[in-house]
Amino acid sequence: MQHNFTRVLGIDCGSNATGFGVIDSDGRASVLVAHGVIRTRPNHAFEARLLQISTELRDLIAKHVPQAVAVEGVFHSVNARSALQLGHVRGVALLAAADAGLAVHEYSPLQIKSSVVGYGRAEKSQVQQMVKLLLRLNEIPAEDAADALAVALCHSHHSLGAARIARATSIQRPASIPA
Amino acid sequence: MQHNFTRVLGIDCGSNATGFGVIDSDGRASVLVAHGVIRTRPNHAFEARLLQISTELRDLIAKHVPQAVAVEGVFHSVNARSALQLGHVRGVALLAAADAGLAVHEYSPLQIKSSVVGYGRAEKSQVQQMVKLLLRLNEIPAEDAADALAVALCHSHHSLGAARIARATSIQRPASIPA
Repeated sequence: MQHNFTRVLGIDCGSNATGFGVIDSDGRASVLVAHGVIRTRPNHAFEARLLQISTELRDLIAKHVPQAVAVEGVFHSVNARSALQLGHVRGVALLAAADAGLAVHEYSPLQIKSSVVGYGRAEKSQVQQMVKLLLRLNEIPAEDAADALAVALCHSHHSLGAARIARATSIQRPASIPA
Repeated sequence: MQHNFTRVLGIDCGSNATGFGVIDSDGRASVLVAHGVIRTRPNHAFEARLLQISTELRDLIAKHVPQAVAVEGVFHSVNARSALQLGHVRGVALLAAADAGLAVHEYSPLQIKSSVVGYGRAEKSQVQQMVKLLLRLNEIPAEDAADALAVALCHSHHSLGAARIARATSIQRPASIPA
């Protein structure tokens, strides 16, 4: 990993398919490290599927050692049943992050689309195209992996971009003059 | 633990307070092993609260070595927001069970009340009184702990009671006559 680059793990939670994307970024340039989708079998016991998601996320964290985790916040009103099921998977994902001592950052769909496409009401396909462009990929990743990479990119732009601007500003400002 | 007794951990999930109750039971007689409430601080990061619940549940499982886990199923329509939050905690609880190789058994509020009080529309206070009576406690446990003990008792009555009846029936039936 290059100096000043931060490794971010984005997770797109779902009980059937949980996407993940790991990138190195300085808030402007980003490089793909890994991406993929954890798929579970609907005919397996729900707790066994949660255990599979947990184990694979923990393995990913151990292998790639990210410095931050980013997930999409759930702000839109899904029905209670889907919210409950999604909640189980999110609980397991947040736990894997907390267990590794990693802070979890949440972004709304509007923030993610604005950050990646520059337009908060962008279509899913536009987000996927921009993920491909920004990470210089040969092809568009699977939908859930693209969503995970999008939230990782959003976190990089937000937190690391802001840190870069702060650093640049502090260099330009003489130490003797208070801000 | 007595011969033919099974140790059951009941969990009553909640993000502020998660009740637990461990009992030994043969499906008819039940003995209290442990009960209590895991309380988390609402001002802590949500993932830190999930980690606390996870750690305490894992410690409980390691200490008391239950053979089964029972939880209340979520069947009534709560709103999407509460369902999402409850889902996170349930995900962490189911994961702790699955990680220990324990099957999770779900019971509806109707099944729990019917099993413990004998009446599916019983009041919460009646369930608590019966938990106290059935386990010969000196006082009524805290509400969340009582709910956890109730679902543990429900599981014992259902699964172990059925097994006891099956054993008794197989003894009474001569082996030479097919069922």
